[in-house]
Amino acid sequence: MSRNALKMVTIGGGSSYTPELIEGYIKRQDQLPIKEIWLVDIPEGEKKLNIVGNMAKRMVKAAGLDWEVHLTLDRREALKDADFVSTQFRVGLLEARVKDERIPGSYGLLGQETNGAGGIFKAFRTVPVILDIVKDMKDLCPNAWLINFTNPSGMITEAIQQYGKWDKVIGLCNVPVMAMMNEPATIGKELKDLTYKFAGIDHFHWHRVWDNSGKEVTMDIINKMYDGSETGLPKNIFDVKFFREQLNQMKMIPCGYHRYYYRQTEMLNHSLEEFNQNKTRAQEVMRIEHELFTLYQDSNLDHKPKQLAERGGAHYSDAACEAIASIYGDKKTHMVVSTLNHGALPDLPSDHTVEVSSIITASGALPLTFGHFQPAESGWIQLMKNMELVIDQAAVTGDYGLALQAFIMNPLIPSGQAAKDLLDEMLVANKKYLPQFADKIKELEDQ
Amino acid sequence: MSRNALKMVTIGGGSSYTPELIEGYIKRQDQLPIKEIWLVDIPEGEKKLNIVGNMAKRMVKAAGLDWEVHLTLDRREALKDADFVSTQFRVGLLEARVKDERIPGSYGLLGQETNGAGGIFKAFRTVPVILDIVKDMKDLCPNAWLINFTNPSGMITEAIQQYGKWDKVIGLCNVPVMAMMNEPATIGKELKDLTYKFAGIDHFHWHRVWDNSGKEVTMDIINKMYDGSETGLPKNIFDVKFFREQLNQMKMIPCGYHRYYYRQTEMLNHSLEEFNQNKTRAQEVMRIEHELFTLYQDSNLDHKPKQLAERGGAHYSDAACEAIASIYGDKKTHMVVSTLNHGALPDLPSDHTVEVSSIITASGALPLTFGHFQPAESGWIQLMKNMELVIDQAAVTGDYGLALQAFIMNPLIPSGQAAKDLLDEMLVANKKYLPQFADKIKELEDQ
Amino acid sequence: MSRNALKMVTIGGGSSYTPELIEGYIKRQDQLPIKEIWLVDIPEGEKKLNIVGNMAKRMVKAAGLDWEVHLTLDRREALKDADFVSTQFRVGLLEARVKDERIPGSYGLLGQETNGAGGIFKAFRTVPVILDIVKDMKDLCPNAWLINFTNPSGMITEAIQQYGKWDKVIGLCNVPVMAMMNEPATIGKELKDLTYKFAGIDHFHWHRVWDNSGKEVTMDIINKMYDGSETGLPKNIFDVKFFREQLNQMKMIPCGYHRYYYRQTEMLNHSLEEFNQNKTRAQEVMRIEHELFTLYQDSNLDHKPKQLAERGGAHYSDAACEAIASIYGDKKTHMVVSTLNHGALPDLPSDHTVEVSSIITASGALPLTFGHFQPAESGWIQLMKNMELVIDQAAVTGDYGLALQAFIMNPLIPSGQAAKDLLDEMLVANKKYLPQFADKIKELEDQ
Amino acid sequence: MSRNALKMVTIGGGSSYTPELIEGYIKRQDQLPIKEIWLVDIPEGEKKLNIVGNMAKRMVKAAGLDWEVHLTLDRREALKDADFVSTQFRVGLLEARVKDERIPGSYGLLGQETNGAGGIFKAFRTVPVILDIVKDMKDLCPNAWLINFTNPSGMITEAIQQYGKWDKVIGLCNVPVMAMMNEPATIGKELKDLTYKFAGIDHFHWHRVWDNSGKEVTMDIINKMYDGSETGLPKNIFDVKFFREQLNQMKMIPCGYHRYYYRQTEMLNHSLEEFNQNKTRAQEVMRIEHELFTLYQDSNLDHKPKQLAERGGAHYSDAACEAIASIYGDKKTHMVVSTLNHGALPDLPSDHTVEVSSIITASGALPLTFGHFQPAESGWIQLMKNMELVIDQAAVTGDYGLALQAFIMNPLIPSGQAAKDLLDEMLVANKKYLPQFADKIKELEDQ
Ligand SMILES: [Mn+2]
Ligand SMILES: [Mn+2]
Ligand SMILES: [Mn+2]
Ligand SMILES: [Mn+2]
Repeated sequence: MSRNALKMVTIGGGSSYTPELIEGYIKRQDQLPIKEIWLVDIPEGEKKLNIVGNMAKRMVKAAGLDWEVHLTLDRREALKDADFVSTQFRVGLLEARVKDERIPGSYGLLGQETNGAGGIFKAFRTVPVILDIVKDMKDLCPNAWLINFTNPSGMITEAIQQYGKWDKVIGLCNVPVMAMMNEPATIGKELKDLTYKFAGIDHFHWHRVWDNSGKEVTMDIINKMYDGSETGLPKNIFDVKFFREQLNQMKMIPCGYHRYYYRQTEMLNHSLEEFNQNKTRAQEVMRIEHELFTLYQDSNLDHKPKQLAERGGAHYSDAACEAIASIYGDKKTHMVVSTLNHGALPDLPSDHTVEVSSIITASGALPLTFGHFQPAESGWIQLMKNMELVIDQAAVTGDYGLALQAFIMNPLIPSGQAAKDLLDEMLVANKKYLPQFADKIKELEDQ
Repeated sequence: MSRNALKMVTIGGGSSYTPELIEGYIKRQDQLPIKEIWLVDIPEGEKKLNIVGNMAKRMVKAAGLDWEVHLTLDRREALKDADFVSTQFRVGLLEARVKDERIPGSYGLLGQETNGAGGIFKAFRTVPVILDIVKDMKDLCPNAWLINFTNPSGMITEAIQQYGKWDKVIGLCNVPVMAMMNEPATIGKELKDLTYKFAGIDHFHWHRVWDNSGKEVTMDIINKMYDGSETGLPKNIFDVKFFREQLNQMKMIPCGYHRYYYRQTEMLNHSLEEFNQNKTRAQEVMRIEHELFTLYQDSNLDHKPKQLAERGGAHYSDAACEAIASIYGDKKTHMVVSTLNHGALPDLPSDHTVEVSSIITASGALPLTFGHFQPAESGWIQLMKNMELVIDQAAVTGDYGLALQAFIMNPLIPSGQAAKDLLDEMLVANKKYLPQFADKIKELEDQ
Repeated sequence: MSRNALKMVTIGGGSSYTPELIEGYIKRQDQLPIKEIWLVDIPEGEKKLNIVGNMAKRMVKAAGLDWEVHLTLDRREALKDADFVSTQFRVGLLEARVKDERIPGSYGLLGQETNGAGGIFKAFRTVPVILDIVKDMKDLCPNAWLINFTNPSGMITEAIQQYGKWDKVIGLCNVPVMAMMNEPATIGKELKDLTYKFAGIDHFHWHRVWDNSGKEVTMDIINKMYDGSETGLPKNIFDVKFFREQLNQMKMIPCGYHRYYYRQTEMLNHSLEEFNQNKTRAQEVMRIEHELFTLYQDSNLDHKPKQLAERGGAHYSDAACEAIASIYGDKKTHMVVSTLNHGALPDLPSDHTVEVSSIITASGALPLTFGHFQPAESGWIQLMKNMELVIDQAAVTGDYGLALQAFIMNPLIPSGQAAKDLLDEMLVANKKYLPQFADKIKELEDQ
Repeated sequence: MSRNALKMVTIGGGSSYTPELIEGYIKRQDQLPIKEIWLVDIPEGEKKLNIVGNMAKRMVKAAGLDWEVHLTLDRREALKDADFVSTQFRVGLLEARVKDERIPGSYGLLGQETNGAGGIFKAFRTVPVILDIVKDMKDLCPNAWLINFTNPSGMITEAIQQYGKWDKVIGLCNVPVMAMMNEPATIGKELKDLTYKFAGIDHFHWHRVWDNSGKEVTMDIINKMYDGSETGLPKNIFDVKFFREQLNQMKMIPCGYHRYYYRQTEMLNHSLEEFNQNKTRAQEVMRIEHELFTLYQDSNLDHKPKQLAERGGAHYSDAACEAIASIYGDKKTHMVVSTLNHGALPDLPSDHTVEVSSIITASGALPLTFGHFQPAESGWIQLMKNMELVIDQAAVTGDYGLALQAFIMNPLIPSGQAAKDLLDEMLVANKKYLPQFADKIKELEDQ
């Protein structure tokens, strides 16, 4: 690492989230001796890249910093000698998200981009691209750290490690961040006075909490979930309460996404309602994005607008900055990240990615052990983790049988002919981004 | 064991399957020096016990054997000094099965007595009774073997071992038996020339097959499943084909019950069709039973009528006789039984029950190792086995939160308010047989 | 916990180490609102208790603190409502250590009190006493934390958790402390700029180190071990170099005690040399102790004398104070402690004690995952951990067969008749402290 | 496989054991349609090959069989289209064994060719050769089965699977065979009426036994070990009794080689006694071999002479024939073989070789599960298995650090400078057969 002149690269730099990232860097200017920030995007994103890139330049200037902000479509130029690479791209742009939400919806199934059929296809599209980035990194910046927050973050991180053979990676999500931002207040505490232990996989984890007298306060927080307190659900998740009797037995706090699995019917109904009213999340996001980019075009705007907080991914970028600062500064901060299990969750294989409370050091994430789950949670997590493995393997090989196995395993897709038809329709609809499935797609088109 | 004068006890002796059991004993008269057969039932089953018991006496007599056949309502009298105890009772009789099938059906869910909500409740009703029997056995026949084929056979066997602390038990099912009876012919082979390796849990296992030249013939059998060959599906399971691409990837043969999980939609639709036509399996079974008991009443009938083969449980009793003969004679036969894992399936904990190819010796079942599953099957089996553990724990403790967790985990019950309502309705409807849930049921009734 | 008026209890308060403990408390007076310090000992230790206890009072007074220092022979009075209990007693006093060193020596074997035959007997004597203390704690101070530094610290901690069923325990050792005190300077670093990861069991662990740029510096430290740098070997261990080729392959730093296993012959020879010159460690310690207590008797002495640093256990008590302050203050300090594995070392069972880098919080130690060992270290640690389990089980049950198994497993005791004779001689010699082996000892005496 | 005209190949065909192998084939002539037997050896063994090869021809002829017996020095010619390949070669001939026994002896250490330093060097010499054979087999007879009884049989089998990536292999040893031949009579039983369960690794396993009423008779057999009954110790192992108290605790029967570990001192003393009298086993074997080859030269001799039974490896070849017949005939015989664990011993990794009771089918060995060991045996076996892995890795890579780690781990080699000197001396002494260590050996020679 060029320790006194850091080169930071963001793939998908034209994202509307970039101002949060820039703000995150600016907040940590004392911790991070940045020299260059490279925002990379693809030709289809050039216009947005320029808008948000100029906004970034104004933000840096307003902060009185001499950091260079480079905008480029040349990924390899950007990656050359990079110190930290963060990824926030979306293969196929929001149009792909529309498909992830609307095609399942047309089958009466959940349309969501990290769970169900949509999540599987987001992985199928993204894995080949991330592996390509890793290939470039091996060539151009073999000592850099990769901070991934492209979704589905857990599966992408798994692919980077298992198939990309790249260990210097940390996967991020804003869900634990938001829980830790909102929950302490519900029990009259501050985060610094609590010990959080998260365990699971991305978008499917639980946590327990202790106060600074050693008392477990998990059930106190759970109780607050039923009196209307804000406990940190991301904006993109419909709020239906968990069954209290279930949490009383579990004695852990599920993540927001568990709603899809623990209240499947209600979440599906809500999704279909939106589908029928033509107002899926992708469309809502398009509206917000339009509004954001209109703002970003204002050459007087030189700070992150508050509207950005409405996006489901708020705090992702800030988490990325914190991870980067922790690695660079060997801060030993507690963060919840996707990293190799190494025994932290003995119910899962030690050589695969989990999302778990970790200490972030200069040599990466050191997970804290969590110990065994009770049988119900053990069964769920073993299913879900193995499903991730099947999805990644399908994404890498383009094996149709594996893709079908993933659809059949997925708890949010009732198996059967309709599920297979959905798989086939989505393959064809995503043709442009699924080179690995080209033969099968051709076969489907020829029918 | 009284090695030259065996006392065989069957709990649920009034079952229509008893003639198959008696026939099984008669076939093995050279292997089993039986002195007494005790058929035990409860007062509600007395009439059937007498009918089928007399039929059993005629069968024994017709075979020229001097075995004593005792009919009794006094379980403890029967268990005293027993050598082998087999269980084929149904708590709540067929009326309970009607509820297992019709209440879920009324919620638009699968009505089936070993899978979905019905299977869970069959376990809830049966576990307390079987633990009571084990308690009696510890007292009255501590050296006896317990051969369980009461469903859900795997969970009952698990409860006997984990909660009853009774190791001399073997759990049986006819599904592997029927596969091994029917599949060899489809590839022009005989069973004796093949090596079968089954692995999984009861009603959720897979198998692989090799011929006597060492060549794996699993895919050959799979291919035959698509040309109309009879591969041994029990009578009670609707036949919808597995997706060929799935099996090509899996390279194992799923059991018949996998249809509920791999073709969930089609199986549900078929179940609901029957539900809407008022012709669920329980009713079909009642019809067959009526027909069978009419036959059994014929004082000239002294052999098993062919109509018995129409019941889904055909070959169960014969498997029980074979297990008994193998234990008694230390025959080292290959059988597929529910027994302690002990490492045979390294993806599952070694101290819990699995259903696996085993060698049956005088000291019980010695499982053959199977090795690791691929991720898809590993995920499924870990979910399902853990669900069994949750169900058994709920059945023993009467903990409502655990019961709810089981409903939410079950892949055949979409989670949500309706699932909880279904749970509550079934608790109340099964009140008579669920003393462990008495408090919760009272609370539900009081609402 | 009485959060503003802590009651600290030390069993074995008459130890010569007590001034270090008191100094440790005084150093942390801002972190620990101590009200009472209770020093407990047995009648045989009363004289020392009074000497060192009065010294402690002077130290507290000199520090200008109003803490009450109580000296007592009544353990139950002391334990009543305690907040923290630390243990530094030695069952059988130094006389027992003499036997641990001299009886094996007379067989030509290593005489050492935490390894070989001596270590086994120290466990045999100590386990019953510590379990008795735990029993009192359950009764008198069920919310207290137990900080154990009585040796063999790992086995004692294991016994407290497995047999005492007491979870609020942390086991300590000064070996990791001294490594972290001395090694950084050898590579021109400070501890705060390094990340240490220790893994293993007490007196048999390894560690790896990274600097604050993420670079692993383990090999740099190893290289310094061969140029004469002081890397922190406790005073009681004879210094013979590890084979460099071995460490090059291992790429981890062994603990000082590994010398007994990696350079068995040289360590044995040195031990026997001392044995033959009648100068075993116990005798050396007696000399130091005598000197120390002479000093302590000086009513003008009110601070820890520098001579205490010559004892092998230096820094133990300070580590105990730091653990206490970390728990009390939820400091999330990194410490290396004996605690439940929980997956940190996936090569060892998750429900047993290991010594591992942990974050110390108000709810106890949270181990950092270490991941799998290479085969050589994996084999060693599995042998040693299982030996600990055998020893603890023998210590609890008094089973002679288990004691013999422990002797036979122990890599420092060549198995055979002499080993058995040694076992028998040590049983008889320790008769007074081994009630659990009473029957066997009687049998041996009767021969 | 050429199912009706088998080609059998034996590498090391000039061995004095060959007549036992030929006799084994002849005994199984009805089970094995042999067409050709190829005996292969190296030029140094040509003379013996001719003697024993002609003896083999006479044996076949005397049995009235038309099998072709080919003698060749061309391994590739022999391997072409082979069906079964068995290996009984000794790299470096008996001269190497002399070194394995005498060099350690000169250091006051055990001289034995499968345990201690000798066993490690036998592995170092043999692994490269067996991997070369496997390479030829991939090329010339990719469907053949490899039946290995070259020692150290377990490590060689492990190397074949792990490094040779060859799965169609079975490793054999005569120790379990002899136990099963001799033990039943001691308790008045026949083998066919007992169930044996062996578990461990080659030359380090235990077993338990049940009779045909299901009663465990392990302790009955153990009791007989103390009244002078012959329980099957191979001829090459000095007989010193196990400690009865140890076996009483263990409740398993150790294998003969456990003496080296459980009675280390006595075995070492006996070995040194022989060493000092210049009568190590290699020399004894040379004497027997000389006698045997003198017999074999007798052109009238056409059956296996009884003197062959005096060799330690008696029954190895017969076991090989039985394994071959079981594979060919899909006999599902119970045999104790080295094969992949697959969960049979859950204390060891599932993807490494263990020696375990298995059912031998046409598709190979199916291990029977054994379940967890108690802690003492668990610790031992984990040490020993990991030592095997270290030895194999050293044998493949020629890494001196790994070789040193193996020496240090080995319970029969006290670690220290002398152990390192021994390692170095043995490397140089075995130079001719250790190409993988060439650099290190040169370095040693240059010193
Ligand atoms: Mn996320
Ligand atoms: Mn069944
Ligand atoms: Mn220590
Ligand atoms: Mn052998």
